[in-house]
Amino acid sequence: MKIALDAMGGDFGPPSLVAGAVMALRDYQQINKLFLVGDSDKIESELRKHQCNDSRIDIVHSTQVVDMSDRAWTAVRHKKDSSVSRAVDLVKRGQADAIVTAGHTGAAVAASMVKLRTLPGIDRPGIAAVLPTQTNVFVLIDAGANIDARPEHLLQYAFMGSVYSRHVLGYKNPTVGLVSLGEEDVKGTEKTKEVFKMLKKSSLNFVGNIEGRHLFEDPVEVVVCDGFVGNVILKTCESIAVAIFKWLRHEFERSKWRMAGAYLARHAFKDIKNKTNYEEYGGSPLLGVNGICIIAHGASSPLAIKNALRVAAESIEQQVNPHIVEEIRRYHETTASLEPALR
Amino acid sequence: MKIALDAMGGDFGPPSLVAGAVMALRDYQQINKLFLVGDSDKIESELRKHQCNDSRIDIVHSTQVVDMSDRAWTAVRHKKDSSVSRAVDLVKRGQADAIVTAGHTGAAVAASMVKLRTLPGIDRPGIAAVLPTQTNVFVLIDAGANIDARPEHLLQYAFMGSVYSRHVLGYKNPTVGLVSLGEEDVKGTEKTKEVFKMLKKSSLNFVGNIEGRHLFEDPVEVVVCDGFVGNVILKTCESIAVAIFKWLRHEFERSKWRMAGAYLARHAFKDIKNKTNYEEYGGSPLLGVNGICIIAHGASSPLAIKNALRVAAESIEQQVNPHIVEEIRRYHETTASLEPALR
Repeated sequence: MKIALDAMGGDFGPPSLVAGAVMALRDYQQINKLFLVGDSDKIESELRKHQCNDSRIDIVHSTQVVDMSDRAWTAVRHKKDSSVSRAVDLVKRGQADAIVTAGHTGAAVAASMVKLRTLPGIDRPGIAAVLPTQTNVFVLIDAGANIDARPEHLLQYAFMGSVYSRHVLGYKNPTVGLVSLGEEDVKGTEKTKEVFKMLKKSSLNFVGNIEGRHLFEDPVEVVVCDGFVGNVILKTCESIAVAIFKWLRHEFERSKWRMAGAYLARHAFKDIKNKTNYEEYGGSPLLGVNGICIIAHGASSPLAIKNALRVAAESIEQQVNPHIVEEIRRYHETTASLEPALR
Repeated sequence: MKIALDAMGGDFGPPSLVAGAVMALRDYQQINKLFLVGDSDKIESELRKHQCNDSRIDIVHSTQVVDMSDRAWTAVRHKKDSSVSRAVDLVKRGQADAIVTAGHTGAAVAASMVKLRTLPGIDRPGIAAVLPTQTNVFVLIDAGANIDARPEHLLQYAFMGSVYSRHVLGYKNPTVGLVSLGEEDVKGTEKTKEVFKMLKKSSLNFVGNIEGRHLFEDPVEVVVCDGFVGNVILKTCESIAVAIFKWLRHEFERSKWRMAGAYLARHAFKDIKNKTNYEEYGGSPLLGVNGICIIAHGASSPLAIKNALRVAAESIEQQVNPHIVEEIRRYHETTASLEPALR
């Protein structure tokens, strides 16, 4: 398989991205070709630091970078030689099977939509973030691709999240919940009420509305919401977990007994930290585009980039896109005559 | 001061609510009168259990209760003798200074809007939830009163949250952040971009867009968002804190060394648990209505109800509403000729 890495995007730039690429090439032999897209001087300099001359690396020079302050669609239109645009071009031309980027999320979404187009039956792509609970993981879709989603987009997210949950995470018949303000059918905005009706009529294993408090207490396997809400949930979860551990450390430091106790129990903290560490999850697939695009965290470390490349490899292996197309086609065949929601 | 408690709403009904009322009367001598509104037989029976015959209690009988499955506005129109409606009536007629309810939030908001009306210059009320960080607390407004907020409502929330933060929490010049998808001005929905411009022009100490990840890491003192997003943030925070502590317990139980360590450090956990426990915060004021209405958690324990009554007492003492009216009036005078956003 062939993967294109945007070697410029992200808070830490080429040093972190190239280091992650080198780690991935060492661990994942199934990667036959890794395109590193960006400023070739910088990329070569980083590769030299790692003394890496792996023949699977192919540097693709590009002269521009999308800044975090750029508007997504403007960036795609006016920075045609940006690293993310060039990486997507490789997938468009069939030279790569997947893109991985830690850069401007909006630009990655826009470039993928414009160049790769959406899958048949899908109007808007959605980011599927995988979040850990005590016993398992769940998919949150959309984690920030589409902030002005219409009801039919949310229905499509539910289908895509279910496919990903089944084929990549291994859930047999994943439960689907809709983020709203209360569990009762009548709660929510006009939009969520409409989505509720659509989901209830669908073949999905829909369990109803869920509130933020159900995300971790009695979790469902696919959590559906619009991109604004999903992004807030994702970032809040990251923030609060980090804050609680910092806070615990501060409380431990207040006495030597507490410090001793924390030392004895240190492996418990480590186990949880590893499980809640987004570096381990690496990246979130942008589902619904005709190609594979993995969105990594802006602050990705080399380990996070390595794992984002792993997620790309898994998505290629598990044939997520053909499964999505098949599910949506089947939905059309069985219910579209009754419910034209997905048309 | 006189407070009206909806003695029927909430997951645990009169037993928890009356027990909380009894605790509050014991601790807060500034409460001269406490109306307990609801089924008088049930209320009297609970009072007998506590052997309470405090002369400050005044039972107001009502025959109806708003169920969680009721629609808010329908409940206000058709259940005119519900405990929450009757409690709001007491404030409307000047017999009570504040209402406290743990029942249907939407019904409490609707009843307050219809019966008390909004303050001059305020179009929609917002719930101001107080959330803890490691070193302090911040106000999240709106935590769920108004799920379809317009930009000017969000600006009004910013003013109300700042007043509450200054006069009740004691911040001198509270920083205000707008929940969005990125820190840059260009990020967000059409709505948040419009609010961003309004806040920038206002006299508030506006620091810009904030993401979920800034809520706890580098927190601002007033967090502004619409009621749907605010409710999701509030419930997610509650859920994840509970989940992490449960998860820690589970990890500790995996070895006796870990258990011993957790025992030594037990006070650190207790300190954090107390600080993150919503029972200590009690209730969130519904700001912007012409009266004081405190929304308690549906699952309120007696301690939570006692603290919600404390929040009501503080709001009465600190004259929050006159301060809001004054701030909004001043905004009109100084900037309304340039920016008609609040009209």
